[in-house]
Amino acid sequence: MILINGRVTSEIEVADRGLHYGDGLFETIAVCKERAVLYAAHLRRLEEGCRRLAIAVPKREVLDKEVANLCQGISQGVLKIIVTRGSGGRGYRPPPQPQPTRILSMHPWPDYPAVSSEYGITLRICRTPLGHNPYLAGIKHLNRLEQVLARSEWDDPMIPEGVMLDSQGYVIGGTMSNLFIVREGNLQTPDLISCGVAGVMRGFILEQALPLDLKVTEYSLTLADLKSAEEVFVCNSLMGLWPVRRFEETQYPLGPVTQRLRQRIHSQLSWGC
Amino acid sequence: MILINGRVTSEIEVADRGLHYGDGLFETIAVCKERAVLYAAHLRRLEEGCRRLAIAVPKREVLDKEVANLCQGISQGVLKIIVTRGSGGRGYRPPPQPQPTRILSMHPWPDYPAVSSEYGITLRICRTPLGHNPYLAGIKHLNRLEQVLARSEWDDPMIPEGVMLDSQGYVIGGTMSNLFIVREGNLQTPDLISCGVAGVMRGFILEQALPLDLKVTEYSLTLADLKSAEEVFVCNSLMGLWPVRRFEETQYPLGPVTQRLRQRIHSQLSWGC
Repeated sequence: MILINGRVTSEIEVADRGLHYGDGLFETIAVCKERAVLYAAHLRRLEEGCRRLAIAVPKREVLDKEVANLCQGISQGVLKIIVTRGSGGRGYRPPPQPQPTRILSMHPWPDYPAVSSEYGITLRICRTPLGHNPYLAGIKHLNRLEQVLARSEWDDPMIPEGVMLDSQGYVIGGTMSNLFIVREGNLQTPDLISCGVAGVMRGFILEQALPLDLKVTEYSLTLADLKSAEEVFVCNSLMGLWPVRRFEETQYPLGPVTQRLRQRIHSQLSWGC
Repeated sequence: MILINGRVTSEIEVADRGLHYGDGLFETIAVCKERAVLYAAHLRRLEEGCRRLAIAVPKREVLDKEVANLCQGISQGVLKIIVTRGSGGRGYRPPPQPQPTRILSMHPWPDYPAVSSEYGITLRICRTPLGHNPYLAGIKHLNRLEQVLARSEWDDPMIPEGVMLDSQGYVIGGTMSNLFIVREGNLQTPDLISCGVAGVMRGFILEQALPLDLKVTEYSLTLADLKSAEEVFVCNSLMGLWPVRRFEETQYPLGPVTQRLRQRIHSQLSWGC
């Protein structure tokens, strides 16, 4: 089912600025036993994105009702919420009183193999870089051509994710995930000041680090840091946490920090339903 | 009138990747006396964009017919062509055999005051930067949040355009235009290797420089270069060429090179119908 501004339909106005300029935001949310997982954190990021782009935040009670409606009877699925600035005339300048468009849709759970989560994955490097723009960094806006091009670089079904660097060569994350490394038993992850998406699962992991007595550093992570890491993992709201076992020529163990975090995430979120 | 894949309608499928990721391209074309101005050059850029994003190029004879259909009876207007990768499932990875979406729409001619073209305009500086990505530079793709944010920075109707810098501080162009400066009687314009849109009017001006015996240099233009220029102008497919008379605290004359170029463009393109 798809709800557009509360109406069941599968078509939007062609004048929508989401189409013309990518002028909007989205959230991709795991649904488990009719429940939107980490829903409050997703809404917080959506609200932050709306604030940064000066798009009116959808009313909470309206969203809650529509989300509950879509999640009804769904044992496992993916809820996508898109909010655009709405329709407008031609030209980059936003119209004076835009009426945002709210699109909620339910999608099948992705058929990720269990081995990715349990044993780990192989990562490759992407050549498409991420451009710097602090005004867009962190939020999950609809300008995603960099990720589309990066994800088009390979077809190998045995490689589920690729590492993206920024235009200065620093590691930012995966095409659809955030990345952490373990060094001296503690967590390190790229800062997202200039580009990248501040994933909701990344935020949850940062919160879980404290009760697990792990220190976390956010900084400018280099390829050398990634290659010399003790452990590596990627995360997002659907995969949870995937250990990385190989990146190009470098191999990593299925390490203790990654295992502890993965167990904690899965127990906290009743992952996998 | 709006034609979507040849059908008269004003709605598109919500699953279109143009909406989800800005996964597509567009062209904005002046229409004068039922004729799409610089049509061949617009199609060349659209084709180049399709090639760079690996989107199938719309068939020329289909486009020609649809464009002629829309331009019929239009004495002055704006034709917009959007080509997206088409509908797909969730996820950045393009579907294996996407069917591109082709959207043609006719819009009113913008009510630019004649004084902008004849006397010139005031430019301001934008704080929203343009991120570097050589894979996206030059083409007119649908990821336009940087321009939307930049154009949202001011409301003053007396200032029709703003200057955008890249993330390293170099001048790239206007929010909706390309920029040229005159130095020692010759033309200089930012190169668009790392970001920016290679405007069709910019390309036309580069071509016209030769018969006017003007040398052109494309390079990394600084704010100091802009401020110390003899003449400055901006251009796009709808405005043609607007002399710049003021940028922040700097004033410029209505200079001879700008005047010659403007006259040539207007006579070559029967501008203003």
